[in-house]
Amino acid sequence: MNDQAPITATTSKTEALARRYGADALPAAGPWNQHLDLLLSHRSVRGYRPDALPAGTLETLVAAAQSAATSSNMQTWSVVAVTDPATKAVMAKVANNQKHIEQCPLFLVWLADLSRNRRLAAAEGAELVTPDYLEGFLVAAIDAALAAQNAVVAAESLGLSTVYIGALRNDPLKVAEVLGLPAGAMGVFGLCVGYATPEAEAEVKPRLAQDAVLFREKYGNPDEPALRAAYDAKLAAFSRQNEMAETTWTGRVINRFGTLAAMNGRDRLAEIVRAMGFPLR
Amino acid sequence: MNDQAPITATTSKTEALARRYGADALPAAGPWNQHLDLLLSHRSVRGYRPDALPAGTLETLVAAAQSAATSSNMQTWSVVAVTDPATKAVMAKVANNQKHIEQCPLFLVWLADLSRNRRLAAAEGAELVTPDYLEGFLVAAIDAALAAQNAVVAAESLGLSTVYIGALRNDPLKVAEVLGLPAGAMGVFGLCVGYATPEAEAEVKPRLAQDAVLFREKYGNPDEPALRAAYDAKLAAFSRQNEMAETTWTGRVINRFGTLAAMNGRDRLAEIVRAMGFPLR
Repeated sequence: MNDQAPITATTSKTEALARRYGADALPAAGPWNQHLDLLLSHRSVRGYRPDALPAGTLETLVAAAQSAATSSNMQTWSVVAVTDPATKAVMAKVANNQKHIEQCPLFLVWLADLSRNRRLAAAEGAELVTPDYLEGFLVAAIDAALAAQNAVVAAESLGLSTVYIGALRNDPLKVAEVLGLPAGAMGVFGLCVGYATPEAEAEVKPRLAQDAVLFREKYGNPDEPALRAAYDAKLAAFSRQNEMAETTWTGRVINRFGTLAAMNGRDRLAEIVRAMGFPLR
Repeated sequence: MNDQAPITATTSKTEALARRYGADALPAAGPWNQHLDLLLSHRSVRGYRPDALPAGTLETLVAAAQSAATSSNMQTWSVVAVTDPATKAVMAKVANNQKHIEQCPLFLVWLADLSRNRRLAAAEGAELVTPDYLEGFLVAAIDAALAAQNAVVAAESLGLSTVYIGALRNDPLKVAEVLGLPAGAMGVFGLCVGYATPEAEAEVKPRLAQDAVLFREKYGNPDEPALRAAYDAKLAAFSRQNEMAETTWTGRVINRFGTLAAMNGRDRLAEIVRAMGFPLR
């Protein structure tokens, strides 16, 4: 499908790139179309109206998710759609009381799921080995992420907003208990889906300049310290404008990754994942 | 952005869903637009013309990738763009001689990358703890996957084709050596990008019925064996039509996940990932 000609973008390319990188850090000019406009305009939203989704929305998001590539077509992911307020309340509690989990009309729990492959083998009297290895777990987690991202793009194309909830990994055993997960299935992250409240309509968050994450032929950029300093200033300004604590990116990384306390129990993840039926050999 | 009204899909919803699931397994009817049409029409392509990409294409794909969500805005991924034939030849060899890696004009290596966060902390005299844990590695791998999937959608919107190359994990140390990766950065998968040859224009591959992967409130479906049997027949027919070995999905899963030999060295992945600077605690 080549949509370069017929589709008219609603936002100009330069405007979309400036929102993402800042006007001083525009990447090289390239092609543009309405799909790119949609992708570039993503923002995570943390406040939802209670409005129900149109009929068939869930199935449409999952059709998009299943259309993503999956390693060797093994389809090692599943998704549990949660609308029950009691279940959402448990999920919100696991995730440090993120209230948007209870607000959103649809909460999707994306699973790394090797259990379906195992059930199939058991039914055939065969044994599988890959699921016992880190490789198997990694394939399943990546499969789940590719699928979920397609669902996010699909949701945003329908005027819906989303936010990923990695904090489900604070207590994967509780998530498994509430959803009735078998061994070999684990919630790797959640996703809120719904209509944003006006107050929660966030600005597009700026990212590191492309030269800090995109390398050509060989890794590395000697300008990284300068690029980081420029981004620190940009993110501090963004925080100030959006009434968040004014911190640089450097400060955020050190806060987030610098202490065991900030891991909220996820320092036990390897042990827990093993207990859930992924030996990680 | 709400595109439901103005965008006209080029493929009908029913046709797109029938290609993905078979006409006998259509999910519930839902909304439709040209973005969904694009997502639903994905196919992985394993043959490329040598034609160069339009100027700015790489930067546009990376802008889409950076617009994906990233856990706590930690941006724990990077990408190396490879066009050098000698480097592509090494990558192809790592990946069991997949010739499309050498054919495609652009080969992207997506990195789980905690090294940038570590460099930042070192520059500030701080220490990070999360990168030492499985949690840190998982966040980085998922971040890379979300970013890459946005790049795939962007590429397909431009009439380009792609295929993920998980087989880079056959030998991540060789990939790291050739790309000059620092400790704490690892190629989790590659991605071929280019224009499909006419022979390689694949059909849309059918997937498991939605009821086999989408659950409501609680995990599980007692009809799973019947859904699997129906999909086995569908995938065998697809293989026959596309001149591949006629195998069921059940047969493929057992072949792919059933033997150490099929892991192509990836049974050593945990050890290798640790050696690359991810302790996986």
